[in-house]
Amino acid sequence: MDASNYIPADVKPHDGQFRAGRHYFACRVYYEDTDFSGIVYHAAYLKFMERARSDMLYQLGMDQRAAFEAGDGAYAVADLHIKYIAPARFQDNLLVISGVKRLRKASVEIEQTIIRGNEKIVSAVVQAAFLTPAGRPRRQPEPWTKAFAAVMVEAVDTKPDE
Amino acid sequence: MDASNYIPADVKPHDGQFRAGRHYFACRVYYEDTDFSGIVYHAAYLKFMERARSDMLYQLGMDQRAAFEAGDGAYAVADLHIKYIAPARFQDNLLVISGVKRLRKASVEIEQTIIRGNEKIVSAVVQAAFLTPAGRPRRQPEPWTKAFAAVMVEAVDTKPDE
Amino acid sequence: MDASNYIPADVKPHDGQFRAGRHYFACRVYYEDTDFSGIVYHAAYLKFMERARSDMLYQLGMDQRAAFEAGDGAYAVADLHIKYIAPARFQDNLLVISGVKRLRKASVEIEQTIIRGNEKIVSAVVQAAFLTPAGRPRRQPEPWTKAFAAVMVEAVDTKPDE
Amino acid sequence: MDASNYIPADVKPHDGQFRAGRHYFACRVYYEDTDFSGIVYHAAYLKFMERARSDMLYQLGMDQRAAFEAGDGAYAVADLHIKYIAPARFQDNLLVISGVKRLRKASVEIEQTIIRGNEKIVSAVVQAAFLTPAGRPRRQPEPWTKAFAAVMVEAVDTKPDE
Repeated sequence: MDASNYIPADVKPHDGQFRAGRHYFACRVYYEDTDFSGIVYHAAYLKFMERARSDMLYQLGMDQRAAFEAGDGAYAVADLHIKYIAPARFQDNLLVISGVKRLRKASVEIEQTIIRGNEKIVSAVVQAAFLTPAGRPRRQPEPWTKAFAAVMVEAVDTKPDE
Repeated sequence: MDASNYIPADVKPHDGQFRAGRHYFACRVYYEDTDFSGIVYHAAYLKFMERARSDMLYQLGMDQRAAFEAGDGAYAVADLHIKYIAPARFQDNLLVISGVKRLRKASVEIEQTIIRGNEKIVSAVVQAAFLTPAGRPRRQPEPWTKAFAAVMVEAVDTKPDE
Repeated sequence: MDASNYIPADVKPHDGQFRAGRHYFACRVYYEDTDFSGIVYHAAYLKFMERARSDMLYQLGMDQRAAFEAGDGAYAVADLHIKYIAPARFQDNLLVISGVKRLRKASVEIEQTIIRGNEKIVSAVVQAAFLTPAGRPRRQPEPWTKAFAAVMVEAVDTKPDE
Repeated sequence: MDASNYIPADVKPHDGQFRAGRHYFACRVYYEDTDFSGIVYHAAYLKFMERARSDMLYQLGMDQRAAFEAGDGAYAVADLHIKYIAPARFQDNLLVISGVKRLRKASVEIEQTIIRGNEKIVSAVVQAAFLTPAGRPRRQPEPWTKAFAAVMVEAVDTKPDE
């Protein structure tokens, strides 16, 4: 099999999407995500939620890899509270819904819910801090806080009665 | 945030695709896949390849979860040989290309290559055995071997000069 | 290399230990636990804490595997709140300290701290629910609640002024 | 719970051991290592083997973290062939046996077997290449090749009839 023979240009990784200030990211449960008790391993949801957050930043034009390689820093989770409501299983299609809840100079708080169809699987609040390569809190790049602020405003504007 | 407010029907997990007997599955590198040395952790590629194989079966109409829950069995990797050619990094878009190489009654051999653009990242040969819940080799369900055989034939027919 | 030639009887997996109602479990950080930003990936701490909880049960004589195989059920995390205080890095020696905080019929709340030397790395509160194979809450086996209760009492007795 | 109250000095992470040129490293199977089919997930064995290799280097006095932080480089797996012989399950005690098989300037080949009691679980051959931070092959530090050579000689000397 020579991989270089033919490369389909239209088979691309999943991209999440913003709708009215909320970010939607889909994932499917694979072997790696489950444990012998038959359900998704509790730490696997943190991976799903991190993929969604990274995608959210990606969609907002923030290049985490470039920021890290330039020596600016990277996000690290500072606080995470997760409630496991119903178990997910192998082959399930999940949707991670994320919203920026609070924005500080050096950190951002993101609310995340994972659903399967209409059913809530987990809900979480995650605080991510921007850290220098040495591990100290650093003010997030200004274009990033602006991008976060924009989706917060949008969420408030379109869902005024929440 | 009430997740049930609005659920976009069009944000769905990535589905791989068959083209002329080869299966193409895309994935993006996230934090979880990397290690402190800056590149993708070597075992993470096994996860990418397993996702691709599970998707391949899914696209061929084989329901692994139903087979397991019915007590029929599940696939387990019996032999795996992987060559690491070039390192992948955070945020890279990868494409897993898989082809059925050999088909036996109780096992299947799948050739897998992971590329980034035109560059080969890893290449592997994986033998997966179908096992009873007790762990003994079992003949694969007949519709499954037929489905595997169909994509093998197609691959040969359309790429005769390889 | 013939593995059966010689098997040293004294090279055994790490066992945690109870001291005055607290459980101590050590682990070292490996490649798999880190990410490209150079520190331990946030979900890896959940694995360390789960190893410690499983070891705790093991030391208390609870056989989770036997309970699962007998169809009784298994624990699943219901709620988890974790604070990331300082980052850990490759090759660090960590110590997970766990204490039973609250005991209910179908669940147990465990407080867990991870330290490196004298430095606190993370602190967490984890609620684990005992579930039937079908995923419904079930009363924990009576010998298990007794074993949990015993270490709670001991912790109170020996540290009365906390 | 104040973690700093009491820290037992004798609860330490597992250290592997060399005996006659072979390295022995123990590990126990936890939830994280298993999948819904009830057995250890195939990629988890790569983690066990990597922990054993890192411990092997650690026992031989090679400080991978210092080498990386000094900008010298890090090991990356270049080739891995693994045979899955029997499945391991939750709570199993495993022993990873490793031996240096071949030593080149910029890479080392290590043979690894995982056993449970007298039973072989997997056997593998792993080639690890030393790479610069930029990802190019680099000659391993001389004290490291000497340390590897020493355990190879010892293995040959003490087991001449293999």
